[in-house]
Amino acid sequence: MPSAGKRGGRLAVGLISGTSLDGIDAALVRISGQAGRPRVDLLAFHTFPYPARLRRQLLQLAGGEAVSTAALSEINFRLGALFGRAVERLCRRQRVKLSSLHCIGSHGQTVFHQGRPSGGRKGPRHPASTLQLGEPSLIAARCGVTTVADFRPTDMGLGGQGAPLVPLVDYLLFAHARLGTVALNIGGIANITVIPRGGRQEDVVGFDTGPGNMVIDALVRRHTRGKQNFDRNGRIASHGFVIPQVLKKCLSHSFLRLRPPKSAGREQFGADFVGKILRAGASHRSQDLIATATELTVVTIVEALKRFVLPRTPVDRLIVSGGGAHNRHLMRRLGEMLPGTRLQQSHEFGIPEDAKEAIAFALLAERTLKGLPGNLPAVTGATRPAILGKVIYASRY
Amino acid sequence: MPSAGKRGGRLAVGLISGTSLDGIDAALVRISGQAGRPRVDLLAFHTFPYPARLRRQLLQLAGGEAVSTAALSEINFRLGALFGRAVERLCRRQRVKLSSLHCIGSHGQTVFHQGRPSGGRKGPRHPASTLQLGEPSLIAARCGVTTVADFRPTDMGLGGQGAPLVPLVDYLLFAHARLGTVALNIGGIANITVIPRGGRQEDVVGFDTGPGNMVIDALVRRHTRGKQNFDRNGRIASHGFVIPQVLKKCLSHSFLRLRPPKSAGREQFGADFVGKILRAGASHRSQDLIATATELTVVTIVEALKRFVLPRTPVDRLIVSGGGAHNRHLMRRLGEMLPGTRLQQSHEFGIPEDAKEAIAFALLAERTLKGLPGNLPAVTGATRPAILGKVIYASRY
Repeated sequence: MPSAGKRGGRLAVGLISGTSLDGIDAALVRISGQAGRPRVDLLAFHTFPYPARLRRQLLQLAGGEAVSTAALSEINFRLGALFGRAVERLCRRQRVKLSSLHCIGSHGQTVFHQGRPSGGRKGPRHPASTLQLGEPSLIAARCGVTTVADFRPTDMGLGGQGAPLVPLVDYLLFAHARLGTVALNIGGIANITVIPRGGRQEDVVGFDTGPGNMVIDALVRRHTRGKQNFDRNGRIASHGFVIPQVLKKCLSHSFLRLRPPKSAGREQFGADFVGKILRAGASHRSQDLIATATELTVVTIVEALKRFVLPRTPVDRLIVSGGGAHNRHLMRRLGEMLPGTRLQQSHEFGIPEDAKEAIAFALLAERTLKGLPGNLPAVTGATRPAILGKVIYASRY
Repeated sequence: MPSAGKRGGRLAVGLISGTSLDGIDAALVRISGQAGRPRVDLLAFHTFPYPARLRRQLLQLAGGEAVSTAALSEINFRLGALFGRAVERLCRRQRVKLSSLHCIGSHGQTVFHQGRPSGGRKGPRHPASTLQLGEPSLIAARCGVTTVADFRPTDMGLGGQGAPLVPLVDYLLFAHARLGTVALNIGGIANITVIPRGGRQEDVVGFDTGPGNMVIDALVRRHTRGKQNFDRNGRIASHGFVIPQVLKKCLSHSFLRLRPPKSAGREQFGADFVGKILRAGASHRSQDLIATATELTVVTIVEALKRFVLPRTPVDRLIVSGGGAHNRHLMRRLGEMLPGTRLQQSHEFGIPEDAKEAIAFALLAERTLKGLPGNLPAVTGATRPAILGKVIYASRY
């Protein structure tokens, strides 16, 4: 049997650091097959935590604190070097030579994202813009590997929101001739990609359904006085009871009635929203509030499917990824509320729940180098498909 | 005779905004001939001034004022849109269709550049880094033209200072089999590219000689209470007398004794340096100080040639570009002090003095798309040649 390193296909590394600012997710994959139906094998995945001092700086930046261009320039270069080192370390563990990599796709670290213009009327008007740090030239130089980065601005240049970008990858990985598929990612926010049976790329729809883990995590941190960041296995929620009047109040949020495409963030379900839950449920036990927040995530996902998806296309299976896929209580409730739908986790398809985004950017980088578009205009709102990202060619002289 | 638009070669636009933060220099060129000996025809050149409010914001940024990532992200996108509009306007004037452009090279607007690591010993250590704004994805999207941008970080990823990058372009434009050539650019700082007779690319040397117009301009602004930003035609200097003791004091600056490669900036010849001149020459007339500053520029250029260039290679001609090339008094003094050297202006070679940098980035972009390196390691200090910049592929679906 040929060794892993000698099989066909192209090796690529995908890099992303999420909004939790914990560290760098790095996925080493082998991509083979046709561009329209790639086969992706995950060879290694690891999260490289940020040094504590850098993480504090990033939290300040993302929180809106002002910095000098000197400081920002420095952080951008430091991050780029760290991203490059993450690739080196991942490949060394796996005994994969850097020179055998076809490409690196780096999403970078988002420190600002505004998908649509804001303001106007009375206040100043702000154009849509996005800012990812982690200088990719340093990744390419350090590793000697052609690197694609900054995927979002290209879509935004064509009027898109620059997000979400994973739906095309969901389509490439999960499209099925006879099974209507929904890829559900439960991160801080929950989002779905709808891939109709035998669907063509143009029929794919993607949008945020509402809170994912964001509200649950905030309540857990409060409940445990910061000792736990999330409800491991959904244990806390499974010992609580849903508070109907609090759930009802949460479900009246205007975001939930908006028609897709739509996207949510901390503006909708961050600290302000959690504060409202705490006030509405002031007389209740913490585990009841956590059970309620978990039910909120479940119900908003199910309602989004019932209102906006099922009337248009049958859904045979739901493939779940993101941290929420590990929450057994949440997954059980989801299954109970969708009895006709096969509930699967993405690792059953070779895509570990936490690795999907990093894998996605390896695949998007490979598409860019093939000259293929990486956005879905129906999902992002761009006027047309675009070859995403900026390419830094490795110099091997 | 075929019209200009129908001749051979590739059309490209080069974009740069200099440290003076006045606006965007845009050059439309036709590049033909071999990669190692390109012919460049300038079809149009224009400077598009920044809106006053944006210029103020940029001055604040470049001056070290802190901003939120939201504000920086917004300025980056606004600038990118303006760079794209500059291309549109330049091409419209010239009746060149955007779809006929092969590429755009955009240097962007530098808001921070530190070519070497600093600090250490007692204080915190700062890595080398650089930050250019003007989101190039927006240029590519707006114009539908493949765009190369962010040239400096690639070189810095390989240990280089990311500057200067023009020497390779000087070499491509001015190398001569029988004439030892020095390309002299007199911007804020003066720098030279030395191209020995029949020289190979590896023999090219480039470095900063000292102040260019920076000190002169500062004194002129003071002398005219801000009514003039520079000494037009060198008229003020031509009515003054050099003050020997002030000139001598200036010439004792330690930068001038450093061996090349070396680079200077406001840290060496900015406000502090001007303050010293004003104190040393307190009893003298303004025009004498301006004459002295002009003489300082001339003498430091000549001394650099005599100390570091002429002992190694003969110089048959000096090709001058940059704003200082328009200073007749300065040019006359330069000619007087270098009697054996042919003094020429770059426009005699089809490169207007003010357009050279913008032209350079059109040419560097075209090289990147050919997969050719754009830096000279002997000049920047990089460990090896690199394909410079980040490529955003235009999507034409």
